[in-house]
Amino acid sequence: MNNFTFFAPTRLVFGKGTIGNLATLVPQNARVLMIYGGGSIRKNGVYEQVTKALNGRTVFEFGGIQPNPLYETCMQAAELGKKESVDFLLAVGGGSVLDGVKFIAAAMRFPASDPWDILAKGAEVASAVPLGTVLTLPATGSESNSFSVMSRKSTSEKLAFSAEAVIPRFAILDPQTTFTLPAKQTRNGVVDAFVHVMEQYATYSVNTPLQDRQAEAILTTLVEEGPRLLAGPNDYDTRANIMWCATQALNTLIGCGVAQDWATHMIGHELTALYGLDHAETLAIVLPQLLRHQKQTKAARLDQMAKRVWGITAGSAESRIEAGIVRMVEFFESLGMPTRLAAYKIAPADAAAKVSKRFVDRGTTLGEHQDLTPDRVAAILKDC
Amino acid sequence: MNNFTFFAPTRLVFGKGTIGNLATLVPQNARVLMIYGGGSIRKNGVYEQVTKALNGRTVFEFGGIQPNPLYETCMQAAELGKKESVDFLLAVGGGSVLDGVKFIAAAMRFPASDPWDILAKGAEVASAVPLGTVLTLPATGSESNSFSVMSRKSTSEKLAFSAEAVIPRFAILDPQTTFTLPAKQTRNGVVDAFVHVMEQYATYSVNTPLQDRQAEAILTTLVEEGPRLLAGPNDYDTRANIMWCATQALNTLIGCGVAQDWATHMIGHELTALYGLDHAETLAIVLPQLLRHQKQTKAARLDQMAKRVWGITAGSAESRIEAGIVRMVEFFESLGMPTRLAAYKIAPADAAAKVSKRFVDRGTTLGEHQDLTPDRVAAILKDC
Repeated sequence: MNNFTFFAPTRLVFGKGTIGNLATLVPQNARVLMIYGGGSIRKNGVYEQVTKALNGRTVFEFGGIQPNPLYETCMQAAELGKKESVDFLLAVGGGSVLDGVKFIAAAMRFPASDPWDILAKGAEVASAVPLGTVLTLPATGSESNSFSVMSRKSTSEKLAFSAEAVIPRFAILDPQTTFTLPAKQTRNGVVDAFVHVMEQYATYSVNTPLQDRQAEAILTTLVEEGPRLLAGPNDYDTRANIMWCATQALNTLIGCGVAQDWATHMIGHELTALYGLDHAETLAIVLPQLLRHQKQTKAARLDQMAKRVWGITAGSAESRIEAGIVRMVEFFESLGMPTRLAAYKIAPADAAAKVSKRFVDRGTTLGEHQDLTPDRVAAILKDC
Repeated sequence: MNNFTFFAPTRLVFGKGTIGNLATLVPQNARVLMIYGGGSIRKNGVYEQVTKALNGRTVFEFGGIQPNPLYETCMQAAELGKKESVDFLLAVGGGSVLDGVKFIAAAMRFPASDPWDILAKGAEVASAVPLGTVLTLPATGSESNSFSVMSRKSTSEKLAFSAEAVIPRFAILDPQTTFTLPAKQTRNGVVDAFVHVMEQYATYSVNTPLQDRQAEAILTTLVEEGPRLLAGPNDYDTRANIMWCATQALNTLIGCGVAQDWATHMIGHELTALYGLDHAETLAIVLPQLLRHQKQTKAARLDQMAKRVWGITAGSAESRIEAGIVRMVEFFESLGMPTRLAAYKIAPADAAAKVSKRFVDRGTTLGEHQDLTPDRVAAILKDC
């Protein structure tokens, strides 16, 4: 096991009717900026529950955070927050709203001129406005971690940062808020959580049997619950199990002391930036081919997964590994998630050339062994 | 899934050579009271590592916290802490030292006359002196939770309390510190962690497939690593895996949203208070017979455990359940842990009479269905 630090101080309040807990979770005298996305919360009753629970505080609102939250938009919210001397940010929405609010929280306290430096130059986030969240889309795990991914329209860039100061103080997770999600977002969430686990699991062993099994627990549960979600989107327990899986997939617990990859995410971010695909859509395309290209170095773990998650015990290790990848692709497709660039009319050669050029320009190599050069990324994308 | 709140804000710093991190984890200007147990830390190098890392702070010391920490002793430490205006407590040791320090932290700030009220009357712990820990004995999970169990010599009582204010700020877990543990303490730790999981798992289902698998992950890993520990007590990875299992067993994660039991612990506490057995020794005696007595209401979960943890798939559910209990007993015994009162020359009828009388006097019923009356507790103990 590698040395590690685990720090996940977010208070998770999970269950039916829990939004009312905002009344005690948000400081009584706070000047709150409530931030949300496209406005679905005005249709599903969440907006009313939130504003009722915040009763008595001074509350400002900022709507319109995009999927793949834009720097340009979030800077407007930061300006509003500073102008109104806001001292608490409440994110109401999914991972995009949360990632945006994390950036806003850091930008409001950023001492230098351009907060984009946090993303482009890794500038330190020494302090941030405290934030909490009401999560309405289980997917990214952003509700209990330090990560944020931001996009910049003017440069077609999509970059990530991480800072303890932006870890949410609390996250309210009421699975009932997810009943009204469009099928596409539900599907995206399951795939996103699944791939988060894979990035921390499908690498090589450093003797971490508990973390392995904790990862397999999430994968197996997602595989089990996914079809139930399609069959009964209003089943509370199924929604609850999916929501808890998504949080656990990226609160960094299963990543403690293990080798991690994240190449699928890095390649996927470029596909989103270049072609506008949803984050999860890019992951479902890249991961299967990446695993096939890297199956030599990931063999032991992929074979373990074939046995423990997919129950494939017959045949050679090589055949089990391939059968496991096929099962994963079938799982994604069964959720209505395409796994080929062709589904979006993107030529693999075009994606290969454009993405690998970006990695050449930045000098990026990827993977748990740092062996995914731009050339190898191009080869993977040509097979997507 | 039941509604729940999960809050585990302890910063866990895990791995080789991590004690030096105290230099940044303990506030620079702190007046520190370092609290430890019987003095083993003076023999295994931990004392030197800790004091070196605390260099520059004003450090007071209090040694001699007992296994099953005594109220009488901890009150002396609290007096010292108050007299010296200590503002940070550092627990160096195992669960007993930690539980004691949690009580000391609460007692130092307790406004009323007798801090025993925290345990005997459930008096509120509104505030506590901040505390951190260097853990040297993986077992209780106390390093990242709000729980403490205290004993009082004058009344032969052993009682628990829980308060957010006493959750450790950090826990340093260096598996190397456990190489020199006596075999008995190592064995106790494995059994303690195992039974912590069982209390949160061997109940009834409320549809929590992820939590089930997270619990089974710990049980399976303990069963796998236990024999390795006996074969190679100085193997770093084995020690690390056991240590991480023990922390995960009671940081409350696997208990999120599930039905919980804790009857084995409540009965065990009385056996410790009455006969002086180690905590884990009591658990290994009580749990098997409790499961046999309660196997009607725990049947589905025990059968799931037989299949998933013990790999028993043949036969009837009833035979699998019994075979699983037998395997658990064999596992405990293989670690050198007795599973019968007779091993300590305690007459089951005597234990049954004395423990059940205490529960009658307090009006206590136990179990996830609150169906374990004092009479049924007596029946269980007669079979121990």
